Amino acid sequence: MEFNIELQNRVQEIEKILKQYLPQEVGFQKTVVEAMEYSLMAGGKRLRPLLIWESYRLFGGKNKTEIEPFMAAMEMIHTYSLVHDDLPAMDDDMYRRGRKTTHVVYGEAMGILAGDGLLNYGFEVASQAFLDVTTLKKATQAFMVLARKAGIYGMIGGQAVDVENCDRPMEKDKLDFIYQLKTGALIEASMMIGAIMADCTDAQLKKAEEIGKKIGLAFQIQDDILDVIGDEAEIGKPLHSDEKNHKTTYVTIFGIEKAKSLVEQLSTEALDALHTCPQENVFLEALIQYLIYRKK
Amino acid sequence: MEFNIELQNRVQEIEKILKQYLPQEVGFQKTVVEAMEYSLMAGGKRLRPLLIWESYRLFGGKNKTEIEPFMAAMEMIHTYSLVHDDLPAMDDDMYRRGRKTTHVVYGEAMGILAGDGLLNYGFEVASQAFLDVTTLKKATQAFMVLARKAGIYGMIGGQAVDVENCDRPMEKDKLDFIYQLKTGALIEASMMIGAIMADCTDAQLKKAEEIGKKIGLAFQIQDDILDVIGDEAEIGKPLHSDEKNHKTTYVTIFGIEKAKSLVEQLSTEALDALHTCPQENVFLEALIQYLIYRKK
Repeated sequence: MEFNIELQNRVQEIEKILKQYLPQEVGFQKTVVEAMEYSLMAGGKRLRPLLIWESYRLFGGKNKTEIEPFMAAMEMIHTYSLVHDDLPAMDDDMYRRGRKTTHVVYGEAMGILAGDGLLNYGFEVASQAFLDVTTLKKATQAFMVLARKAGIYGMIGGQAVDVENCDRPMEKDKLDFIYQLKTGALIEASMMIGAIMADCTDAQLKKAEEIGKKIGLAFQIQDDILDVIGDEAEIGKPLHSDEKNHKTTYVTIFGIEKAKSLVEQLSTEALDALHTCPQENVFLEALIQYLIYRKK
Repeated sequence: MEFNIELQNRVQEIEKILKQYLPQEVGFQKTVVEAMEYSLMAGGKRLRPLLIWESYRLFGGKNKTEIEPFMAAMEMIHTYSLVHDDLPAMDDDMYRRGRKTTHVVYGEAMGILAGDGLLNYGFEVASQAFLDVTTLKKATQAFMVLARKAGIYGMIGGQAVDVENCDRPMEKDKLDFIYQLKTGALIEASMMIGAIMADCTDAQLKKAEEIGKKIGLAFQIQDDILDVIGDEAEIGKPLHSDEKNHKTTYVTIFGIEKAKSLVEQLSTEALDALHTCPQENVFLEALIQYLIYRKK
C-alpha cells in the first residue's frame, strides 16, 4: 500500500482511539474538558502514538488493544506541553496548526488548567493499562518510562532550560541537552513503551531508546530548518520565530546545508538500527524517511 | 504524648521524606528543580501526607515505607496546584505562607514549568511503589485513585469551575461541587490511599472516602471562615480576598455562625465514622479536632 494512504489510515485510527479515551461524562467542569478536547483534536502528525504502535510491531507485539491507553496518554502529554508552551508567559503563540491556540479561545487561566488537565488525564488514561493483571508488570514498566521521560529528567527539564536560554547564545552541549530532553525524550519513550509492551529484552529496550534518540534529534533539526525555509501556510504558524527570538539552533550553529546532512545521517543511522530488530517494519522505515522530507 | 508535639514530629518526618524524594542529580535543568524545591519546602500543614499515614494506621497498616512514595507524591501534587493557582492569570497571589510565591521569585514561565514539574514528578515518585512486585496490585490501585482524584474528575475539575465562577454569584450545588472536587478530592484520595495500602476491604475503602469527604468539606468551610475572621500575620497571606473578589462561599451563603456549626457537625460525623474502623487512632481524632479550631 502506498505510504501516504497507510499513514492517513493510521492517523485516523489514532484519532478514533483519542476520542474514545477522552472524558465522557462531565458535569459543571465541561469547559475545561472542552478546552482539553479542542487542544487534543486539533490535528497534528500524531507522531508519538504512531511510534508506539510501530515500535510495538517492530518488536513482535500482536495485541494492539494493550498499547492503546499508552498511545492516547502519550498524545495527551505531548498536547499539554504545546498548550503550556503557547501561553503568553512562554512563547506567546496565537496560532498553532492554523487554529487559534487554546488560551486564545478559552482564556489564559483555562489554558493553564486545560494543560494541567491533559497532563494529569494522560497519566490517568495510561494507568487504565493496570486493569489487566496478566500484563500488569510490563504495563507498570512502560508507565515508569512515560513518567520519567515526560518530567524533569525528560521533556519538562528540556523545556525549562530552553526557556532560560531562549534569548541568548548557547553552547552546543546545552543545545543538545535541550533537544534530547524537550523533543527527544517523548520520542524515545514512545519507542521504548512499544518495545516493553511487546515483551522485548533489555538489550532491545536500549536499542529502541537509541532509535528514538536519533529520530528525535533528526526531527528537531528538521524543525529548525523548516523555521527558516518552510512554507508558512503549510506549517500553520508564523515562521522565522527562531531568528526573531535570537535563538541558537542547529541552523545558526552549522548552517542550513550541514543541518540538512545531519538530519539525513541521523535518519540513516536510525534505519540501520531498525534492520537489526526482530520484525521488518516497512511502514516505520517509510515514516522515518517521511520525517526527513516533511514540509510541516 | 501531647498532640502538638506529636504533630510537629510527624510533620518533620514528612518533610524528611519529601527531601529524600526530591530529584537528586540534575544538570542544566537545575533552576526548575530549585523552583520545585522552593515551592515544596515552603512549610504548610502537610495535611494530605499526614492523612495517608494516619489512614494507613487506622486500617491496620504496619510497614510505613510502602506508603512513603504516595505521601511524597501527594504533597507534590497539592503543591503544584498552589503554584499554578498563584499565577497572575489565576489568583495572582504574591505571597503564600509568608514567603514570595514561586512565580514571583523565578518568573512566570518558570512558575508554570515548576508546577508542571511537580505534577509530573508526583506521578513519577508514586510509580516508584511499583518496584516492589509483592505489593504491585494494591500500589496500582492506590495510584489510580491518586490520578483520578487529582484530575478533571477531582481537583482540576473543581479548580476549573471555581475559575469560571469566581466573580459571580453561585448556587449552592455548584459551590458544593467546587469544594468537593477542589479541596475534597485530594483529602478523600489521601484517606483512600492509606486504606488501600493497608489492605482494606471494599466497604472500608468507601468509608475512608466518606471520612475524607467530610474532613475536606469541613476544612474548606474553615478556610472561608478564616478569610473573614483570621489573623493575617498568622495565615501569612492577605485576608478578605473572597470579599474583594465577590466570591460566593459558605460564609456568604450561611453567615459565620452557621458556617462554624457546619464545620463542627461535619467533624463530629467524621469522628463517629472513625470509631467504626479497625484500629483506634487517637492522633487522627485529635488532628480532625485541630482542623476545626485551626487559626491558619
